[in-house]
Amino acid sequence: MRISDLARASGLPVATIKYYLREGLLPPGRRRAATQADYDEAHLARLRLLRILREFGRVPVGRLRELVAATEDPGRSTHEVLLAAARALAPLPPSAGPLRAQARAAADARIAGAGWSGVAADAPDRENLAAAIEAVTVAGTHAGGLDALRPYVEAADAIGRFDVGDLRPDQTPAAIMEQMVVGQVVFGEILLTLRRLAEEHYSARQFGAESARG
Amino acid sequence: MRISDLARASGLPVATIKYYLREGLLPPGRRRAATQADYDEAHLARLRLLRILREFGRVPVGRLRELVAATEDPGRSTHEVLLAAARALAPLPPSAGPLRAQARAAADARIAGAGWSGVAADAPDRENLAAAIEAVTVAGTHAGGLDALRPYVEAADAIGRFDVGDLRPDQTPAAIMEQMVVGQVVFGEILLTLRRLAEEHYSARQFGAESARG
Repeated sequence: MRISDLARASGLPVATIKYYLREGLLPPGRRRAATQADYDEAHLARLRLLRILREFGRVPVGRLRELVAATEDPGRSTHEVLLAAARALAPLPPSAGPLRAQARAAADARIAGAGWSGVAADAPDRENLAAAIEAVTVAGTHAGGLDALRPYVEAADAIGRFDVGDLRPDQTPAAIMEQMVVGQVVFGEILLTLRRLAEEHYSARQFGAESARG
Repeated sequence: MRISDLARASGLPVATIKYYLREGLLPPGRRRAATQADYDEAHLARLRLLRILREFGRVPVGRLRELVAATEDPGRSTHEVLLAAARALAPLPPSAGPLRAQARAAADARIAGAGWSGVAADAPDRENLAAAIEAVTVAGTHAGGLDALRPYVEAADAIGRFDVGDLRPDQTPAAIMEQMVVGQVVFGEILLTLRRLAEEHYSARQFGAESARG
């Protein structure tokens, strides 16, 4: 395929594809002539992924580069590719407030209580969990406090088990990374959307018949 | 409390508090003198919420205004406050591609299959779900296709049921809205973080011992 074919098939402008090539997010094509290169299905798969990340993920280019680097190093195991994708796509936690130390202890206790012994001691998401627990504590909006976390841990456990079981380690590192990225970004959005839909349903059932407050 | 006390207690600069007052996100205090006003615990609760939205939610000011308006209309039922919060915080779906119509049918089928009859026919999250289903289809990364949605629907159902059960409709509309917003924004982040942690655990268990590829 030429670059114009890639543009047509991916729905991305040629200028965007050239930008991804310059940034190293898309590997170069096979040179045919001084000004022409050939691209294949792997290029198209990468472009579809970059398009999804642009539409759903709001992922900065620097982090995309980390992701791509993870798949181009043949020494990486499946677990390392998965960690690289999860870490490149995780947000940075808000800066710590006065309750962060206490929240860190609560976060670690939840992770241990869930039985997630495979989580690294230095996993950055421990701090993201602590930051969110601190915010819930500061907000004081949930009368039951951290009891509200229980169904979340159970849901995450079921989903995490399913998603990892769905990976096939006989795929290329690039294909595993692409599945992980779509899993993180698009299925993450699906999860939040389904949760809002479920809340709308249960709220309609529980409060929908309630007459307007006054 | 004076505005300087509010700033100290909320951890927000006075200039930010004045901005929220001007934008109508924080109701005015009770006037004491031409240049002084008194603020109370309800103001502090609102500021804690705005701070959390700024840190976690990246929610535009226009949408915050919609949220606040929803709580200031005494005619709104609990269900209407909940819908206003969910809709103000939902993302706008990416523009439709050629598979969107088919994805919309799949999204509606999933919602019906989950038994979520309380979801309005015009709920904007139907389109968000369709957009995400379209993206998964285009990406072609998941061999099982939309079967991968099943554990997500089950998890969302359990969480949605719990979260709505946790609301107390005897609270003020402002307090219900604050609990909903923290639920959407912070517990949404918690859910995605716990999912990454669970995936790290199951990946370590399944692939961690695997020797490096190559």
